[in-house]
Amino acid sequence: MINDTIAAISTSFGEAGIGIIRISGEKSLDILNEIFQARKEKDMSKVPSFTMHLGNIVDHNQDVIDEVLVSIMRGPKSFTGEDVVEINCHGGLIPLHTTFERVLEAGARLAEPGEFSKLAFLNGRIDLTQAEAIIDVIRAKSKQGLNSAVSQLAGKLSDEVRGIRHEILGLLAAIEAAIDFPEEDIEDVTYEKIKHTVAFLTKQVEKLIATFAQGKLIREGIKTAIVGRTNVGKSSLLNALLKENRSIVTDIPGTTRDTIEEYLTIGGISLKIIDTAGIRKTKDLVERIGVERSKEMIKTADLILFVLDISTGITEEDKEIISDIKDKQAIVLINKIDVEDDEKKRKEIEKFLTPIPHIFISAKDEIGIEQLEKLIVSSVLQGEINLGQDLIITNVRHRDVLVKAQQSLQEVSRGAEKLMTLDFLSIDLKEAWETLGELSGDTVGEDLLDRIFSDFCIGK
Amino acid sequence: MINDTIAAISTSFGEAGIGIIRISGEKSLDILNEIFQARKEKDMSKVPSFTMHLGNIVDHNQDVIDEVLVSIMRGPKSFTGEDVVEINCHGGLIPLHTTFERVLEAGARLAEPGEFSKLAFLNGRIDLTQAEAIIDVIRAKSKQGLNSAVSQLAGKLSDEVRGIRHEILGLLAAIEAAIDFPEEDIEDVTYEKIKHTVAFLTKQVEKLIATFAQGKLIREGIKTAIVGRTNVGKSSLLNALLKENRSIVTDIPGTTRDTIEEYLTIGGISLKIIDTAGIRKTKDLVERIGVERSKEMIKTADLILFVLDISTGITEEDKEIISDIKDKQAIVLINKIDVEDDEKKRKEIEKFLTPIPHIFISAKDEIGIEQLEKLIVSSVLQGEINLGQDLIITNVRHRDVLVKAQQSLQEVSRGAEKLMTLDFLSIDLKEAWETLGELSGDTVGEDLLDRIFSDFCIGK
Repeated sequence: MINDTIAAISTSFGEAGIGIIRISGEKSLDILNEIFQARKEKDMSKVPSFTMHLGNIVDHNQDVIDEVLVSIMRGPKSFTGEDVVEINCHGGLIPLHTTFERVLEAGARLAEPGEFSKLAFLNGRIDLTQAEAIIDVIRAKSKQGLNSAVSQLAGKLSDEVRGIRHEILGLLAAIEAAIDFPEEDIEDVTYEKIKHTVAFLTKQVEKLIATFAQGKLIREGIKTAIVGRTNVGKSSLLNALLKENRSIVTDIPGTTRDTIEEYLTIGGISLKIIDTAGIRKTKDLVERIGVERSKEMIKTADLILFVLDISTGITEEDKEIISDIKDKQAIVLINKIDVEDDEKKRKEIEKFLTPIPHIFISAKDEIGIEQLEKLIVSSVLQGEINLGQDLIITNVRHRDVLVKAQQSLQEVSRGAEKLMTLDFLSIDLKEAWETLGELSGDTVGEDLLDRIFSDFCIGK
Repeated sequence: MINDTIAAISTSFGEAGIGIIRISGEKSLDILNEIFQARKEKDMSKVPSFTMHLGNIVDHNQDVIDEVLVSIMRGPKSFTGEDVVEINCHGGLIPLHTTFERVLEAGARLAEPGEFSKLAFLNGRIDLTQAEAIIDVIRAKSKQGLNSAVSQLAGKLSDEVRGIRHEILGLLAAIEAAIDFPEEDIEDVTYEKIKHTVAFLTKQVEKLIATFAQGKLIREGIKTAIVGRTNVGKSSLLNALLKENRSIVTDIPGTTRDTIEEYLTIGGISLKIIDTAGIRKTKDLVERIGVERSKEMIKTADLILFVLDISTGITEEDKEIISDIKDKQAIVLINKIDVEDDEKKRKEIEKFLTPIPHIFISAKDEIGIEQLEKLIVSSVLQGEINLGQDLIITNVRHRDVLVKAQQSLQEVSRGAEKLMTLDFLSIDLKEAWETLGELSGDTVGEDLLDRIFSDFCIGK
């Protein structure tokens, strides 16, 4: 890490009351002194930490660029561990950019994405799981996701893993002692202790791993695809679901441009709903393309809401899709019971659909929507997920590290069972200890760090 | 004004490092104490002003919502004059909104647009021109616009007007004295003094008014319409202009959805360029609609860039438009000299266009663009505008107030010329004094205040 001073605009762009420019590094206060005139003349490198100062950002000619409020947070007790300055400008494009250009001109370098957080990690202010939690807090898509990220930010995952590593280290010390003083009874005790402790630690690691399925759902939302032929009422269904939850609906732009993605929360579960309504079709190939598109969606979605039209019944295209969803988590919605509702038709359709869960609904009149919501919740939870749980793994990297550690611990157990030499066992145990260190970043390479922080936004 | 505590999200929405919630009012610190747990346990109502504090926003159950940095600015020395709290949250939708909901739940009321600035005005922290400057700073579309708004924010306009009002008051005092002691020589002196002083003041007011034409251009940018038939190269021209100025191009979304608006600065002048390329046309009516659209644009634009195609020459539709632009500030661009360039054709076209300024260009090969830029600058400036001037009126309201004051002063002059009674003169003089008070807001009604501040963004 080069010892320079970095800067970035840390708020979102657009017309707003306030915009913030953040500077970190040993030249932060010198830069500030060059470009800032405090209302009450003072040397900004001498003011107390965690104080705010009103004044003007000025250009070369001492002409005022913007009136600002400046915050000083001195290292090492700052977010990055270095001297940090935050300039609160007026939140328009021109004042913010003109001030920012002035900061760069005065000697700061444009920060890379996530570089402030990376500095915080490298300077030991936070560990890696906490750094990763920052971006999860910012990108949280539900209150639940926020809760989980904030508790990781507070270091709960790190504490848990630190506890496990501490136990492993204790065990390693005992093994070393037994190797150094190889009297038989000590060895016996040691094997017993290893088996017992490793079984206990494995269970702890497995408990964490087990939270991941839920964690992924919390973090990313359950990818829920609404599929079906044209004009069966897919968009009406989406609207009916959204209307019920208007207050927590957010419309976060996704990477996919040709499908509509909406987030909503039902019964505490965050759903990322993908509506395929936006698909472009050629006139001759409508049905065919619809089916292909649905099949593709079915492959990648966590949950499928397949919409039928009771008035047309089940068509050949529908049948093709139904055969695909049999192995997936799916709910079939027989729509338009407001238009047509016939007991015989219902029976016919039900017979064909069993055992796939299905409901007769009217998206237009919002009949059956509540029942659908309950079915969604029970389908997703399947009685397994405890949403009240405190510590939840939401990050694929964390899961992978834990699985690797779990495997090393299992190797130790197997080796102890077979009475392998203590030396041999200590190798796998050390491996588990080191692997777990990757979580907090105690043992981690520069390339992994780069990969993690490049995913951050600039200014964080 | 109800004595309650208001809150708003003061940064722009979107994924970012930081987002700010601002609270102002007498309950600010009580609200903070209820929802905030400082890292180092403390009573936030007792910490010094202009200090920052790390901690957590917590919900009813003391569960953490977000880790935040809190700034305290106590009244009366705060932006609004009341106790102000700013909460720097993580800048994502969910952390910001969840924290904001918590603030409202704890007793704050959602602030109206511009309500913080309105409080600052009502509590005497800034005058009305300064409050108006805030939104001009935020919405500045060029560095020049920013300069002008910032100097108004610093109170330069207020100072100037205060000076004029002070002179008027002195003159009114002299008149009162002359009325109370009506000796002839005092009266004579008074008439002379009135004529002299009022002439001087009128000149000062007129000087300010004269800056408005330029101020409007600085504030809003010169509304420049690119018009012409389909496929004459309008979009290529826009691109050629933008390329030359890439660094200062911004793409601010306008209210009109069907035309493209881009801002660029040429020779220090901010242009708002409107490209009509986005117009939807029916197949049969292309040319007709094009002409109608152009005519509409010509009516409202400050400057017209009318594009012709040298290869097709001047069509009937073109001629119709040319007859319209004769009375407007317009430049005709004969495009595509890369495709076809013929001396005879040039002469023919030039003959028809004279005396309208025109250039032969190739938008594609960027031939003639520099010449066009110079022509734009000279057309707009026409030698009248001094861009280096310090104090510039940018606001229609200010112009109107000054014109009204100017009229009152002229009445005084005319009256003094005719040796009307001093009593009579003092009425118009008082009128001028009061009118000028509307600028700073010393004499201003609630309805005008509402109109001014409702134009602000929420959170400022």
